[in-house]
Amino acid sequence: MEELKQQVYEANMLLPKYKLVTFTWGNVSGIDREKGLFVIKPSGVDYDKLTPEDMVVMDLEGNRVEGHYNPSSDTATHLEIYKAFPKIGGIVHTHSSWATSWAQAGRGIPCYGTTQADYFYGEIPCVRNLTKEEIEEAYEKNTGLLIVDYFKDKDYIAMPGVLCKNHGPFTWGKDAFEAVHNAVVLEEVAKMASRCERINPDVKPAPQELQDKHYYRKHGANAYYGQ
Amino acid sequence: MEELKQQVYEANMLLPKYKLVTFTWGNVSGIDREKGLFVIKPSGVDYDKLTPEDMVVMDLEGNRVEGHYNPSSDTATHLEIYKAFPKIGGIVHTHSSWATSWAQAGRGIPCYGTTQADYFYGEIPCVRNLTKEEIEEAYEKNTGLLIVDYFKDKDYIAMPGVLCKNHGPFTWGKDAFEAVHNAVVLEEVAKMASRCERINPDVKPAPQELQDKHYYRKHGANAYYGQ
Amino acid sequence: MEELKQQVYEANMLLPKYKLVTFTWGNVSGIDREKGLFVIKPSGVDYDKLTPEDMVVMDLEGNRVEGHYNPSSDTATHLEIYKAFPKIGGIVHTHSSWATSWAQAGRGIPCYGTTQADYFYGEIPCVRNLTKEEIEEAYEKNTGLLIVDYFKDKDYIAMPGVLCKNHGPFTWGKDAFEAVHNAVVLEEVAKMASRCERINPDVKPAPQELQDKHYYRKHGANAYYGQ
Amino acid sequence: MEELKQQVYEANMLLPKYKLVTFTWGNVSGIDREKGLFVIKPSGVDYDKLTPEDMVVMDLEGNRVEGHYNPSSDTATHLEIYKAFPKIGGIVHTHSSWATSWAQAGRGIPCYGTTQADYFYGEIPCVRNLTKEEIEEAYEKNTGLLIVDYFKDKDYIAMPGVLCKNHGPFTWGKDAFEAVHNAVVLEEVAKMASRCERINPDVKPAPQELQDKHYYRKHGANAYYGQ
Repeated sequence: MEELKQQVYEANMLLPKYKLVTFTWGNVSGIDREKGLFVIKPSGVDYDKLTPEDMVVMDLEGNRVEGHYNPSSDTATHLEIYKAFPKIGGIVHTHSSWATSWAQAGRGIPCYGTTQADYFYGEIPCVRNLTKEEIEEAYEKNTGLLIVDYFKDKDYIAMPGVLCKNHGPFTWGKDAFEAVHNAVVLEEVAKMASRCERINPDVKPAPQELQDKHYYRKHGANAYYGQ
Repeated sequence: MEELKQQVYEANMLLPKYKLVTFTWGNVSGIDREKGLFVIKPSGVDYDKLTPEDMVVMDLEGNRVEGHYNPSSDTATHLEIYKAFPKIGGIVHTHSSWATSWAQAGRGIPCYGTTQADYFYGEIPCVRNLTKEEIEEAYEKNTGLLIVDYFKDKDYIAMPGVLCKNHGPFTWGKDAFEAVHNAVVLEEVAKMASRCERINPDVKPAPQELQDKHYYRKHGANAYYGQ
Repeated sequence: MEELKQQVYEANMLLPKYKLVTFTWGNVSGIDREKGLFVIKPSGVDYDKLTPEDMVVMDLEGNRVEGHYNPSSDTATHLEIYKAFPKIGGIVHTHSSWATSWAQAGRGIPCYGTTQADYFYGEIPCVRNLTKEEIEEAYEKNTGLLIVDYFKDKDYIAMPGVLCKNHGPFTWGKDAFEAVHNAVVLEEVAKMASRCERINPDVKPAPQELQDKHYYRKHGANAYYGQ
Repeated sequence: MEELKQQVYEANMLLPKYKLVTFTWGNVSGIDREKGLFVIKPSGVDYDKLTPEDMVVMDLEGNRVEGHYNPSSDTATHLEIYKAFPKIGGIVHTHSSWATSWAQAGRGIPCYGTTQADYFYGEIPCVRNLTKEEIEEAYEKNTGLLIVDYFKDKDYIAMPGVLCKNHGPFTWGKDAFEAVHNAVVLEEVAKMASRCERINPDVKPAPQELQDKHYYRKHGANAYYGQ
């Protein structure tokens, strides 16, 4: 667990590095599937005071197994996503500016170009608001369940992120670092999609064959990007 | 007073750190309620030359009690706010770019998401222009009175900031640091609200139950965010 | 002259510091009125290789008096402005992003708030394109004459800057440093004016009495801002 | 070749310096015309781990002549451009934010001002999408051939860059450094053109005589900008 705590700590510290967070508005977690435990940032602790020892270890029933701090207030959301998406190893939540602006606008991000298609296969979805009952009953848990429900008949590996309406983005990946990587990409494509719509209000998504080409040159059996 | 001067100095130095000011376009003050004295930045002094000793100590009648510099030209505005809002300990004024753009546009900032709801309960208001008579009689004092009048039947703790039309923002908090914190939040939500309206011109404020959830998970008796 | 060369060098180095220039797209000059000589940046020399010795000394007939480099290609524009505006001591030209965007759009910048009114009394003008004949005859000199002609019945001290259509801004001040200061302010108000129009497409300029208040609390006999 | 590898390495490292790339989303190459070999960045290698030795040497038949890494996935595009444009010595591809937004919007960048005219003579073109057949047959090679075809009756020296629809920009120059220089300029003019259209939706390109003046004072027999 010490290695995972170190890794999740480092991944958390990438959020201010990539300017994805203001103050404490973000959190990264990572899971050890064998042990059934995940590590997450403590709630409301400043990034410049954070240490690897501050990380909180949780089990998949939501019990704190180790740590002197309360876990992130979004822990229950992470937990539901881990339970439903067995192939992922890390999750990120931020209020990064451009992705959050799309979430506030209540719109998914159309795939306008190859930058998005390199990582996200199609439009990045925006899920609905929770109902008053869902909020009052168990806000953070139901946020996770809503995301899980949206993906129940979809490929969460090919679409490693989602926007929650009037709230902000969640991304995930094979580990905490890849989840942060996808959070950076999301912010960048959110910015370019908004500017692109301003430059051409009638813009259409990139042709499907171009999206396919870019997604599959980086992913799957026939990938040839990288080393 | 030396401790308060140090604190107000440090809080002032956060304004350039958070990129809320260009040149000398901002000021922070903090009050000692027991002594009835407040400390404020001197007028027009560069941030990179500022020292704790340069801070100016004022009483609540507007007399300079200590300090070799003239106080901020906005001192009379701070003074009226301190007199009317007994629960606050610090005030910030800046011309931060996004908040000032909303002020110039003469619009309050609708609460489009949880980022705003975490700190500001509802729409951040924009108060009217002063009349010609109010400007000529006592511009800075009347700016303070206008803000005070706006809040006379409202909760200034749940809405720790305001925009002054064609001018810029004021924020406050339990001390000078919290007032700066709220100034940073205001700038960030002002930015996201503008982008959000561009992404969806028909966007509506976040549902009230979502605003309630986020505001009250951070504030009040049932708060559970943080440590 | 060595002191003026040092000063103009330092003022030039503020342009990259304040992010007003990309590559070599800007220049600052300063004048010694007694000697009738002005100092200006050499043409096309990188800021990170610039030294005080590289500055070029010119007389008001356009002759190079000292210096191993060619002066800025915009030297003839500076010269005409110096001849016509006897109370100024420094001039700046940049392609700073927001001010240039307004220049390209062919619009003056309305005075939407106190930030602009603190430095520029009213709308910052955008002068017309030169004609084909004016360009071919003496492009840089005629750019200066066009600016001078615009201000012939106006107060160039109360309006220390101008936009040249499809080109970019010029600002001036009592010395090279104040000219740079005004270039920074211009960029900032250009940014906020554009954002402000996006937030409220029907926005109107700030009331005249508010502009007066802010301009005259910083300028003239009754100023009380600063020390 | 060691000198060229060093140069191409240094030119690649300018991409993060000028904030033109996120992660590994860009590549620079440079060619030795006498040897008929070009040097290019390896595919998917992080900029902060890159060394001059990592550069890949290719011949103009697309064979790797030297290097322990796979070359950039865009190598075939660079190759076609080198074969068709004999006067260039370096090529850059990025996903820089503003240029990519125009590419995604499917629009060329009109020449709204002298900043663009100083480097690009006229509107920076946006070429069409490849067909499904062209993508499936040889995506990267056909991207190069499409660019080459567009320029077959045009001056690729006077227009040292192009946007590929739904993808991003390519620029070139007499060597790798000039190609990067043009990539920076492209990003800057893409930003200003978008803002300029927002400030004035009816904006027209700069008058031809002004474009001519600026382009030819920096280029060709009668240039007088610089030293």
